[in-house]
Amino acid sequence: MTSYQAPDASTIDKILDHAHFDAQGLVAAIAQSAEADGAVLMMAWMNREALRETLATGKVCYYSRSRQQLWRKGETSGQRQELVSARLDCDGDAVLLLVRQTGVACHTGRRSCFYHEVVPEGLRDTEAPRISPEALYAKHV
Amino acid sequence: MTSYQAPDASTIDKILDHAHFDAQGLVAAIAQSAEADGAVLMMAWMNREALRETLATGKVCYYSRSRQQLWRKGETSGQRQELVSARLDCDGDAVLLLVRQTGVACHTGRRSCFYHEVVPEGLRDTEAPRISPEALYAKHV
Repeated sequence: MTSYQAPDASTIDKILDHAHFDAQGLVAAIAQSAEADGAVLMMAWMNREALRETLATGKVCYYSRSRQQLWRKGETSGQRQELVSARLDCDGDAVLLLVRQTGVACHTGRRSCFYHEVVPEGLRDTEAPRISPEALYAKHV
Repeated sequence: MTSYQAPDASTIDKILDHAHFDAQGLVAAIAQSAEADGAVLMMAWMNREALRETLATGKVCYYSRSRQQLWRKGETSGQRQELVSARLDCDGDAVLLLVRQTGVACHTGRRSCFYHEVVPEGLRDTEAPRISPEALYAKHV
């Protein structure tokens, strides 16, 4: 598995100019595990500053719409995402992040946020929590 | 690989009640190849009707924000997506679709829309088109 190599600041600026931020100044960000199974872990949002920080540091930083601030993934929970590769889509309004995930991506303690699978009977969980939310955030209680 | 089995109409209604559509009535929809490499193919949007149709038929139907209408993937290009599994995320505002993709997902003729990879020099294409956009949409010219 290759490692992410950050462009310099001026090159990052040019890359950011290729991203099409929406009316709220955001692009969609999809995190996919760089492990062989390629599990999609979560979807969140990035503003220009979050994408700049992610591309400059190789540590994934989202923008929290509810808290209206940068959200350095794992800063609170320790469940960090190390960037392996970042890819803009054809129209620049979404970015795919291949990441090495420390622990779990989901605040429920599951590896992936996409665990409510549609089955004939309704929704079924595809996985159980690996850690309790209480344990994930215990150090901040 | 398992096949998708559609719930009945009343069960689909209950599932739709678990989705959290945004102020525009949309959820984000991520299509991932059900092939072994798990390539993320594209990201688009679904309104309630598009998600209902997708879950009822097993054929992926998005909502086109630019055209403001249902977008039955492949109806124009022939590049259809057959649903293998659909999964809502923890807070219900995004859905992951595992799909069997006929041909290519991207309107540029590439398999995936996420082909602009960040490298130290800027952006580099990860893949070349497999078919020209002109050929993709030729029957409608």
